Amino acid sequence: MVIKMQRIGKNVLKLSGMTRVAGSAGVGAKTESEGPLRDDFDFLYPDDGIGQSTWEKAESELQKKAITLAIENAGRTVKEIDCIFAGDLLNQCTGATFGIRDMNIPFIGMYGACSTMVLSLATASVFVDSGAAQTAVASTSSHFCSAEKQFRFPLEYGGQRTPTAQRTATAAGAAVLEYGQPQGIIIDKVMFGKIVDKGITDPNNMGAAMAPAAARTIADFLTDTGTRPMEYDLILTGDLGYVGSQLLYELLQTKENIDISSVHNDCGLLIYDREKQDVHAGGSGCGCCASVLCSHIFKRMRKGELKRILVVATGALLSPVTSMQNESIPGIAHAVEIIYR
Amino acid sequence: MVIKMQRIGKNVLKLSGMTRVAGSAGVGAKTESEGPLRDDFDFLYPDDGIGQSTWEKAESELQKKAITLAIENAGRTVKEIDCIFAGDLLNQCTGATFGIRDMNIPFIGMYGACSTMVLSLATASVFVDSGAAQTAVASTSSHFCSAEKQFRFPLEYGGQRTPTAQRTATAAGAAVLEYGQPQGIIIDKVMFGKIVDKGITDPNNMGAAMAPAAARTIADFLTDTGTRPMEYDLILTGDLGYVGSQLLYELLQTKENIDISSVHNDCGLLIYDREKQDVHAGGSGCGCCASVLCSHIFKRMRKGELKRILVVATGALLSPVTSMQNESIPGIAHAVEIIYR
Repeated sequence: MVIKMQRIGKNVLKLSGMTRVAGSAGVGAKTESEGPLRDDFDFLYPDDGIGQSTWEKAESELQKKAITLAIENAGRTVKEIDCIFAGDLLNQCTGATFGIRDMNIPFIGMYGACSTMVLSLATASVFVDSGAAQTAVASTSSHFCSAEKQFRFPLEYGGQRTPTAQRTATAAGAAVLEYGQPQGIIIDKVMFGKIVDKGITDPNNMGAAMAPAAARTIADFLTDTGTRPMEYDLILTGDLGYVGSQLLYELLQTKENIDISSVHNDCGLLIYDREKQDVHAGGSGCGCCASVLCSHIFKRMRKGELKRILVVATGALLSPVTSMQNESIPGIAHAVEIIYR
Repeated sequence: MVIKMQRIGKNVLKLSGMTRVAGSAGVGAKTESEGPLRDDFDFLYPDDGIGQSTWEKAESELQKKAITLAIENAGRTVKEIDCIFAGDLLNQCTGATFGIRDMNIPFIGMYGACSTMVLSLATASVFVDSGAAQTAVASTSSHFCSAEKQFRFPLEYGGQRTPTAQRTATAAGAAVLEYGQPQGIIIDKVMFGKIVDKGITDPNNMGAAMAPAAARTIADFLTDTGTRPMEYDLILTGDLGYVGSQLLYELLQTKENIDISSVHNDCGLLIYDREKQDVHAGGSGCGCCASVLCSHIFKRMRKGELKRILVVATGALLSPVTSMQNESIPGIAHAVEIIYR
């Protein structure tokens, strides 16, 4: 007989309280080292080249570094990892696949655009909590130069960016999940989001495309769990940036009568200093949420500064081809509630 | 207390025997309708256009059709599905995301290249078996024209293909998994593969790039479960085609002393008639394995013709960019053992 995982309401899965983050790491590069979280990153490369001959190889190296450090921080070796959940924004997810190809770990490829960190963390949590894995890694990465080249223009073109645009973080994050101890950073609940498409078509305004999905996931999560925003020390979105965060407040306030503004922050706003750094509406990319969560936020939790947080990462599920074909941008938001005890 | 999922050996997960395929569907288009499995497909479009204005929209429509029919065949409605695991080969997996965006189902995006059907089936099985979902869908798709455009040349270019090349199936498949009944098509065991990269660099010979991963997964699976090839009615690979299947036999025979040739077949060899159809080394693409498994194979199981099968889908984890950067092609193979009783 298998005792089943507990569902709360329609959308939320309550885990056993025994699945914990045994170790994590966030890595970045130059722009990240100039931002306010510089002291919390586990490793910072001096430039975006990461010692590699191409931007894509640089991104793979970033992800490899984050995974390696996270496993070290967990006091584990690569051989002890049962499986790895990873993905990224590069075509065919090669940031992840080339980053981990030599590690000899069963690999479960994920795609959630910028929601990938929470998607992989939530999926890995279900595996660890159910015993499908004893120890699992969740990871993702992004790179400013590989993303610009693939999604917008080659850097050499020198294209100007709109004020609503965000800067893709050159960063990666990884977390090692383990079953068996009820103390520490615990993945308490997970929720997989539905696709929400409100007809936004501007690929330079991802925040607006993703905010409705974040609003829906947050509203559903609070309803299903019967909790109010004030009960969380932090409601953290992935990379809505300034524009998307404002929209999120407005959507939640007007449509759901929920005010999260006093407990909300966004990884895209935390990672850079918008006053001093040329990042327009803030940071973005899979690596933004991944590196901020796996370095800064988990460090704050370990210090006891944050005891209950709701992390909601959003993804814009478009491709350059769908934009050129005049399609709107589907958004998605996955959530994990994480507690420290 | 949660009773954990059972691991067999290092790699294999034994499920409860209560997670079954409640319904499935495979759909195709013109070339598939001219092949030997025409009578088993659940739906065949008269041409590759699928009534859409672009190849990408056509692929999304294919996947939507397969999912819709699978849910119907399971006697369920879309509202009863707890989550969907899906992906495809298009950049940023837009075949899946645009296909399901209106369905309002929690979406877990997967990337496994041509291994996606078994990857999503195995992951969905873990969710259903553990109670993380009661009812889940696994699906994927591919399209000859969107794949040629994205991975090789626009069709208008009229490029010639090498004899080792395979034809991407214009097809999709979906399966509905449900917990609770021990009769029918049961997902009995799952195994997630490791990345294997033997240095193959020819993107027109995917079979050779993927065969080592298939060999490794099959050898590990047989070792962990203590079974011999003869104990399976069929060992079915995803889309190695003719070249890859021959290589698989050779690798297993010479390196592992395992002979699977009498019980092996390959979806890429089943879907088309290589004598009569211009498909070179056979079929390929996520939709090849998905449509063959979810129509032809599951129909044979329901008739009692196949009672125990091992399905091993392989993926080539490259992108056009990595090939242009002279990278070799990492392969992966995931496995599910399916029984009928």
